[in-house]
Amino acid sequence: MANEVDLVLKGGKIVTPDALFSGAIAIEKGKIAAIATEASCPPGRKTIDVGGKYVIPGVVDPECHLGHARLLEEDFKSETRAAMAAGVTTWGMQLSSTVIRKTMTTFERPDDVPPWLKVFPILPEVGDKHSMVDYFLTSKIMNDTHASEIPALAEKHGVTSFKTQLHLRSGTAVWDVWIGGRQQGIFGYDDGTVYLAMRNVAQLGPPGIYSLHCENWEIARILQQDLTRQGRKDTGAWDDRSPAFCEAGHVRTYAYYAKITGCPLYIQHVTAPETVKEILKAKEEGVKIFGQTGSHYLSLPKDTWKINVPLRSKETIGQIWEALRDGLIDCVGSDHVNYDKRREEMEVKGDVWKTQSGFPSRVEALLPIMLSEGVNKGRITLQRLVEVCCANPARIFGLHPRKGILAPGSDADLVVVDLDRTCKVTKDMIFSSAGWSIYEGWEIRGWPVMTILRGEVMMEWPEGEPRPKIVRQPIGRYIPRQLASK
Amino acid sequence: MANEVDLVLKGGKIVTPDALFSGAIAIEKGKIAAIATEASCPPGRKTIDVGGKYVIPGVVDPECHLGHARLLEEDFKSETRAAMAAGVTTWGMQLSSTVIRKTMTTFERPDDVPPWLKVFPILPEVGDKHSMVDYFLTSKIMNDTHASEIPALAEKHGVTSFKTQLHLRSGTAVWDVWIGGRQQGIFGYDDGTVYLAMRNVAQLGPPGIYSLHCENWEIARILQQDLTRQGRKDTGAWDDRSPAFCEAGHVRTYAYYAKITGCPLYIQHVTAPETVKEILKAKEEGVKIFGQTGSHYLSLPKDTWKINVPLRSKETIGQIWEALRDGLIDCVGSDHVNYDKRREEMEVKGDVWKTQSGFPSRVEALLPIMLSEGVNKGRITLQRLVEVCCANPARIFGLHPRKGILAPGSDADLVVVDLDRTCKVTKDMIFSSAGWSIYEGWEIRGWPVMTILRGEVMMEWPEGEPRPKIVRQPIGRYIPRQLASK
Amino acid sequence: MANEVDLVLKGGKIVTPDALFSGAIAIEKGKIAAIATEASCPPGRKTIDVGGKYVIPGVVDPECHLGHARLLEEDFKSETRAAMAAGVTTWGMQLSSTVIRKTMTTFERPDDVPPWLKVFPILPEVGDKHSMVDYFLTSKIMNDTHASEIPALAEKHGVTSFKTQLHLRSGTAVWDVWIGGRQQGIFGYDDGTVYLAMRNVAQLGPPGIYSLHCENWEIARILQQDLTRQGRKDTGAWDDRSPAFCEAGHVRTYAYYAKITGCPLYIQHVTAPETVKEILKAKEEGVKIFGQTGSHYLSLPKDTWKINVPLRSKETIGQIWEALRDGLIDCVGSDHVNYDKRREEMEVKGDVWKTQSGFPSRVEALLPIMLSEGVNKGRITLQRLVEVCCANPARIFGLHPRKGILAPGSDADLVVVDLDRTCKVTKDMIFSSAGWSIYEGWEIRGWPVMTILRGEVMMEWPEGEPRPKIVRQPIGRYIPRQLASK
Amino acid sequence: MANEVDLVLKGGKIVTPDALFSGAIAIEKGKIAAIATEASCPPGRKTIDVGGKYVIPGVVDPECHLGHARLLEEDFKSETRAAMAAGVTTWGMQLSSTVIRKTMTTFERPDDVPPWLKVFPILPEVGDKHSMVDYFLTSKIMNDTHASEIPALAEKHGVTSFKTQLHLRSGTAVWDVWIGGRQQGIFGYDDGTVYLAMRNVAQLGPPGIYSLHCENWEIARILQQDLTRQGRKDTGAWDDRSPAFCEAGHVRTYAYYAKITGCPLYIQHVTAPETVKEILKAKEEGVKIFGQTGSHYLSLPKDTWKINVPLRSKETIGQIWEALRDGLIDCVGSDHVNYDKRREEMEVKGDVWKTQSGFPSRVEALLPIMLSEGVNKGRITLQRLVEVCCANPARIFGLHPRKGILAPGSDADLVVVDLDRTCKVTKDMIFSSAGWSIYEGWEIRGWPVMTILRGEVMMEWPEGEPRPKIVRQPIGRYIPRQLASK
Repeated sequence: MANEVDLVLKGGKIVTPDALFSGAIAIEKGKIAAIATEASCPPGRKTIDVGGKYVIPGVVDPECHLGHARLLEEDFKSETRAAMAAGVTTWGMQLSSTVIRKTMTTFERPDDVPPWLKVFPILPEVGDKHSMVDYFLTSKIMNDTHASEIPALAEKHGVTSFKTQLHLRSGTAVWDVWIGGRQQGIFGYDDGTVYLAMRNVAQLGPPGIYSLHCENWEIARILQQDLTRQGRKDTGAWDDRSPAFCEAGHVRTYAYYAKITGCPLYIQHVTAPETVKEILKAKEEGVKIFGQTGSHYLSLPKDTWKINVPLRSKETIGQIWEALRDGLIDCVGSDHVNYDKRREEMEVKGDVWKTQSGFPSRVEALLPIMLSEGVNKGRITLQRLVEVCCANPARIFGLHPRKGILAPGSDADLVVVDLDRTCKVTKDMIFSSAGWSIYEGWEIRGWPVMTILRGEVMMEWPEGEPRPKIVRQPIGRYIPRQLASK
Repeated sequence: MANEVDLVLKGGKIVTPDALFSGAIAIEKGKIAAIATEASCPPGRKTIDVGGKYVIPGVVDPECHLGHARLLEEDFKSETRAAMAAGVTTWGMQLSSTVIRKTMTTFERPDDVPPWLKVFPILPEVGDKHSMVDYFLTSKIMNDTHASEIPALAEKHGVTSFKTQLHLRSGTAVWDVWIGGRQQGIFGYDDGTVYLAMRNVAQLGPPGIYSLHCENWEIARILQQDLTRQGRKDTGAWDDRSPAFCEAGHVRTYAYYAKITGCPLYIQHVTAPETVKEILKAKEEGVKIFGQTGSHYLSLPKDTWKINVPLRSKETIGQIWEALRDGLIDCVGSDHVNYDKRREEMEVKGDVWKTQSGFPSRVEALLPIMLSEGVNKGRITLQRLVEVCCANPARIFGLHPRKGILAPGSDADLVVVDLDRTCKVTKDMIFSSAGWSIYEGWEIRGWPVMTILRGEVMMEWPEGEPRPKIVRQPIGRYIPRQLASK
Repeated sequence: MANEVDLVLKGGKIVTPDALFSGAIAIEKGKIAAIATEASCPPGRKTIDVGGKYVIPGVVDPECHLGHARLLEEDFKSETRAAMAAGVTTWGMQLSSTVIRKTMTTFERPDDVPPWLKVFPILPEVGDKHSMVDYFLTSKIMNDTHASEIPALAEKHGVTSFKTQLHLRSGTAVWDVWIGGRQQGIFGYDDGTVYLAMRNVAQLGPPGIYSLHCENWEIARILQQDLTRQGRKDTGAWDDRSPAFCEAGHVRTYAYYAKITGCPLYIQHVTAPETVKEILKAKEEGVKIFGQTGSHYLSLPKDTWKINVPLRSKETIGQIWEALRDGLIDCVGSDHVNYDKRREEMEVKGDVWKTQSGFPSRVEALLPIMLSEGVNKGRITLQRLVEVCCANPARIFGLHPRKGILAPGSDADLVVVDLDRTCKVTKDMIFSSAGWSIYEGWEIRGWPVMTILRGEVMMEWPEGEPRPKIVRQPIGRYIPRQLASK
Repeated sequence: MANEVDLVLKGGKIVTPDALFSGAIAIEKGKIAAIATEASCPPGRKTIDVGGKYVIPGVVDPECHLGHARLLEEDFKSETRAAMAAGVTTWGMQLSSTVIRKTMTTFERPDDVPPWLKVFPILPEVGDKHSMVDYFLTSKIMNDTHASEIPALAEKHGVTSFKTQLHLRSGTAVWDVWIGGRQQGIFGYDDGTVYLAMRNVAQLGPPGIYSLHCENWEIARILQQDLTRQGRKDTGAWDDRSPAFCEAGHVRTYAYYAKITGCPLYIQHVTAPETVKEILKAKEEGVKIFGQTGSHYLSLPKDTWKINVPLRSKETIGQIWEALRDGLIDCVGSDHVNYDKRREEMEVKGDVWKTQSGFPSRVEALLPIMLSEGVNKGRITLQRLVEVCCANPARIFGLHPRKGILAPGSDADLVVVDLDRTCKVTKDMIFSSAGWSIYEGWEIRGWPVMTILRGEVMMEWPEGEPRPKIVRQPIGRYIPRQLASK
């Protein structure tokens, strides 16, 4: 007993959803070997004293979109560094089959969209070479073929989560509004595709789950006409174009079919109390349904930038914090996208319609914003943060108990958090290839200062240094998931 | 690092709500010192090899009623042994102020019911001398005075949970139906008392909680008239006298006032889908509400014995298992009561109206029934059992993180569970002073075989022996709870 | 064809819920003989030209409480004159069995409350001698005996509507707050009584209906303690003592049992949007449920006087008008009570607790307020007024098609309405024996200027005269109702 | 007074939603002049004694689709005779702009669909020449242009009701399944079109109303794939292809947007309890929403023929009768369509997929089925029939008080009903140009035996004759409606 282990983290305040205690964590062969009081921890070949800081599980960010605007490989190289720098150890990649490729391609016709089973192998091939973080796949369901592939994707490739972007229902009609439509070959689908997907996900059983981007862009189309007719070009118009009812309306519609099919749902962007209410109604009817919000929806008011689902009012931000605290929203995700463009390239000042949606580097803000705006401002406890940023995403997406919790045998994915570190965000802190952040100039209090992936220290941010350092080569791996029925 | 500890449990499969792993638990000074793989566990001055069995947190049984029919001291002596024998390490005592006494008294008038602040000190005085298990108090609110004492009880005595038995609303009118009415001085209260209690509990903030026994006996009164008019005397008539709508109706009524006051609710006996539905509706309206069922409601059909709330049909039992599995019910409790009477003294064969309600020894069945009927029959996982029998009650009743979980620094309350131990229940296994069990003759598979309280082995049941042995003198302590706002 | 008839009303604008047209009404033997264009109306032995005024069905006021404070006979004499003066031709008397008497009696014990079947015959005996208006009975259910008498009351005496005053549940405990408690022998009942009544009403089938005064005085008891502790004595405190949730809470509770029993409900006082919402929820669950408000709840804000249910805020008054307009409230009633006391005798200035609740002469305000505040201020149409003041009450209480509509064969109960008549309310206009009105000084525009009961002109108010005149001796009759199943 | 009138109907039992009485109706210049007892009725230049039969208002059938498969003019000629023969006096024509034409045209591109304002004048031009019945227009909204025309259609042409067929959302994708798609130029629309229409209808104010054909054919597409894969070709498969949840799901979705926009909804085909439940939920949320069922949904089980929405099971038929009786469904309509084809031309025996949907001559069955299956089998009263077939459609579609009721000044549209007339349906009774009925061979008890339109006897069916006779040339007129705000 109590042999020497590879690594010991001591001097920390260890945080789980259940408990918060001073102690140490022992790591052996990439797994947690012990969680213990300092006195009872086995000796480590290497010991790191975290000096009273908090130790939390590595962040499981359920949503990023790599390969969105350039080659998947390139995004894997740059963007997973950004994630690692920010305390993310497991990344949920929500990808369309069209981005799983080794060379840039274009999509002219629906038939150009590849079946999932054809392209899937490229993902771990590319990712396992370049990823700094572990990652899993949420396959975007873009047509009936994709919906039909669900059982095989689960069985052969451990893909148990799927997603449909409901705002893209009308296909080519959105290409003008959303540049990604053209780039990713969005040709539309109908409720039949969604229903087929739901039926197939339901049949998987746990941890099968179906993610929905809820936002009725068919109605936003009309509202946009109104706004342009009124001459509105200000950034706030982007919220007025797609108000909360467009989001909540989709939840109501598709929660009904989820009830009919018995399909568990994951609402990708809960940004308004109207949506929270629909989720509660669905639960009351027996639907298994979860909700995610984003750190940006918890910090940036509607006149900041355009994004889909839009940013909301300051009052709404407060309501979403409360819903997160009270257990009405389950997860927080970054929805990280990289256009590899400078701010000047994306923004057309004074014209929201011409400005490109989707500010970059969201993953780098995820944990800091939750610490700074959430924990340090008393809106949620650090334990609740661990629940919504680590434990819940891992549980809901079937990564559990390997990821998201602290237990002997689980992957030793850890983040050391300094709740008092204060730092103003500057451009030179950004790892994302886009090179800028919407939060530049924000004084953030509370930062991840060390990230450990499967026992390896990947990132360090020593006190006094201007930014985190990535201290190790990529070791990220694709994480297949297992059906409970197998 | 890794000094010798008092005790190590090795060779176990450790179960938490989050994880299940092979490992060891180190205990020092009554607290958990480490949870670790075997190799990483510190050495113990004493080591117990549990031989591949499961190790779970000690059971936190939220509901027992000591002193119901005889002196509190006597029940502490005999009944806490029964609890300990069955794997319970923390017991929620739901007591009326009238049972907090050192000599038997009678209650003739409402004024005979003592205020809580007057009698409270007797509880730890008696309990800390005789209790085998740790215990906390849920004060029964029987009148406006009690409701007014809530803030002081929380502040001075760490009482943060309170209860009203709604079936006793009409006071002396129930004395004929329920012997406890006379014994405990039930004189009735009204919605005003309940409202005042709710308002005061709401003001406590977490972990303040208000328990309700939901069962409309005013309506049961009419149904009982019908049944006696029809000549019904069979045991099943007890369910027909107080059908599910009497239970669900109360939930609907009082959840409304909980919403108005912002008071968290705990529904003491969820025995039917009608009640589950009302709880869901209340949640949809924003009420913080939890539900408990009992191992007896999960195993005994309606013609078995009379009890309040009544046992239900076999079909309903199946539905309650499903609700428990699906997270719609949060806790399981024993509702243990001891009349210190043999079966022959309680039962009038063929006449349910004359038979005494409330079979004894319920606490001894709690964990075994959950293991045998639940885990071993595939209705819930062992992890879900740990959630509903340990973690959730601890969290809801504010004992957390001291009780109900496994984490360094938490009390080392543990149960070793043998999922394969099979044993037929016989009278001589019973520790309760009543000396009999409704489950006599049942072949139970899955038993607690060792109970540890704050690091002390209190109970052992070596293989081959006919029954558990209590191996240590009482060390139970009253557990005050802390308001989050303090 | 077209023989001469007893009476023709010509020159009117005739209003029904369905239509509004210029025409004439022919009356023969107390019944409507024709509704016709003027040219097609048969000749009358007597013809009245109403000169372009509106003709509506006689008002069916569903709620008055005669005999409340003095002998029934005395109230019949004075108060039915007040009703007739104000356009009421059918009066729903909601009476307790204790007021059906010929001499004043007192009630010391529950047994002093007479069964309904014993006292019923006194009602038509007294009423048919002295009543100016036709009347029907809604029997108050005060105990289990009353609830058991429901089938016999329906069969023998044509009583198909019943009522329980839920604020009086706790019996003698309300005697201090409500003088009527002592006067009428209120000894309390429980949910069992209510359940038994519901079951019996449900079994009657249409038009059986159960009225509830919804107002949780058990909670009001606590709020009153708060208010007195705060030194509040102002009139507005009466609303704060029993806020909307006390009313809505009862609706929620008892609508549930109505759903269980299949009993149609009539909510006697809908004064707040919270109550409207509960009624909608009950409908969604399949409960047959109707709501009544009062002209006082549509005109008098909370600081005007005390009454049960209390008057509400000005904002709420607006919301109740909207609910009435939109069909969410079905009827308007006067809730007329007579204490036979001058204002000075009832009011203790500056002390709402000592002031007597229930201002007099409400029936005289019913139609004028609906015309003046409702129709003439554009809040409802005259057709909607006819629906909520005539057709709906008649339909719901089973008087239909005899009362409440205009059709050949129906009773010729008519009111001529002058929408432009403007008159300031003065004490000398009051017919009620109390001799005063809370509306004194109000300039009311829109008055009934003629009332016809079964073809007889009972009231006339010629232009230029200061007040209506009763021009005929009483001819009112008790109206028994018929079960649809008979 | 009491001048001679054009026509008197005497000896009848006159039925309104409110009353049922023996009497006479006097008619002058096409309007009702008097409703009277026989003795008080003015003399008629012509008198018809209906011999104790029932007299009800002319049926207002809210839904037919003329010009569906041939020229509007041709359908006007033949099909309005069928309507008149069956007691319909006012017909709601639910037309797409593509059928408002004088010569047959084809539609290749979305631009081929004409704006409403361009084609509208053709409708009264053709109709007023050939129609046997009065008629009003419900404009089908097929694209944004149509949605934008709503205010002008209301103002200029008295069109206040609009409709969208939600099953045709996906446009050309339905052409294979539904022949009407090609014939009428269905090119699809999206939620934006629906939202725009709702907003514009809401702005009209009463009696603006938006009709929806609720049936999710996008999901039916998947279910049809399943069924064909299983080899199903039986008629019952048509129901399995589009089960109740496809209908109810649409109600839930669009009732939400109706709530957001404040738009009153009319659900065109309520065929299942699931839909009734969604309507109740919408009402609870404050949506003004009405529901229509069809006489075919009340009489024909699912294996009879294909139609959209499909026929349902026998059990469901019973539930729909109950919902109609209990006021949960408001109207009954025929949904009459004429393909001008014999049964042999439409039916492919044993292959539901090749059989043409939509059996003919539905309007001729409407009133007889309601009388025979409804009134004479005790499922609804004749008064309720008058409510759902006459008064409610007139009120909801803004024809009130001109149509649907009996009041002086209203159009003298009347039907004499013989509840005892019994007759087996044969091909030679059919007036529709298709020349056959799905009800052939049914023994129907209860028939319209005379129809009067604006005082003119149009149809007579003397006792002993085999079928009704049309006895007069067409006098039907387009009925524009008036906004309440004008």
